[in-house]
Amino acid sequence: MSDPVARLAPALEQEILTDIPLTRALGLRLAEAEAGRVVLAAPLAPNVNDKGCAFGGSLASLLTLAGWALVVLRLRAAGVAAEVYVQDSQLRYLAPVWSDFRAEARAAEGESWDEFFIALGARGKGRLRIHAVVSGADGAPATTLEARFVALRKAG
Amino acid sequence: MSDPVARLAPALEQEILTDIPLTRALGLRLAEAEAGRVVLAAPLAPNVNDKGCAFGGSLASLLTLAGWALVVLRLRAAGVAAEVYVQDSQLRYLAPVWSDFRAEARAAEGESWDEFFIALGARGKGRLRIHAVVSGADGAPATTLEARFVALRKAG
Repeated sequence: MSDPVARLAPALEQEILTDIPLTRALGLRLAEAEAGRVVLAAPLAPNVNDKGCAFGGSLASLLTLAGWALVVLRLRAAGVAAEVYVQDSQLRYLAPVWSDFRAEARAAEGESWDEFFIALGARGKGRLRIHAVVSGADGAPATTLEARFVALRKAG
Repeated sequence: MSDPVARLAPALEQEILTDIPLTRALGLRLAEAEAGRVVLAAPLAPNVNDKGCAFGGSLASLLTLAGWALVVLRLRAAGVAAEVYVQDSQLRYLAPVWSDFRAEARAAEGESWDEFFIALGARGKGRLRIHAVVSGADGAPATTLEARFVALRKAG
């Protein structure tokens, strides 16, 4: 088994840590990647807030990056050179997070990677909604993100 | 003139920088505070993304904290001991940010501080929607946040 998304993940982790300095402060790690999902992880200590649980900005950052990384990896696996941007997002802070945390991103309910790639092929532009979750110690969602990403194929 | 929110702002800035380590990585500064609004500022350099503009996670963090700081300062100015939490937020990334940036938070359209304080007084719990904006070099909104905050009065 050689999932191209999994194979491309270590290089993307290094690029993220090199190009986005805040991810080093977060202690970001790309924990898991396969065609359908990406999981980013971060330790609690550098990400605490005034209450001692995870800072909302850290959760928002990890969730957004998990979605971005999933779209980027799928594009690279398909051999497409494209820039990926987040357009908008909705975050729900359902319960405090008191330990190291992981943000898991997948295509949102009802979204189609095939349609995303068709649009990209036809018009050089594709949009996809991503759903990402940080779960609490009990396994229930503690913070969720729903975000819309746009991919723009590079010229040339 | 001695706006109590302005007077209390320097101490809150120090608490934020002490208690939330990510804000030191962001280079956060509390730039302006008065009863109706709080402005947080951050330099671009530690907050860049892979494209060289401001990282979405940094923008989300500064916008959310600006709203949180405004609610906290209003509560302190009113002499209320309360914890403030963000419940949910909606972010729109309208244009890339290519320079140092400021996040300005105010009560959202249609929100009432008076009703917030009445609910807090009556039930020990108040909710308020905050609107926060990072503007681009042209003065137009580049990233916006609409977020709901809840304040819970501390017992005792």
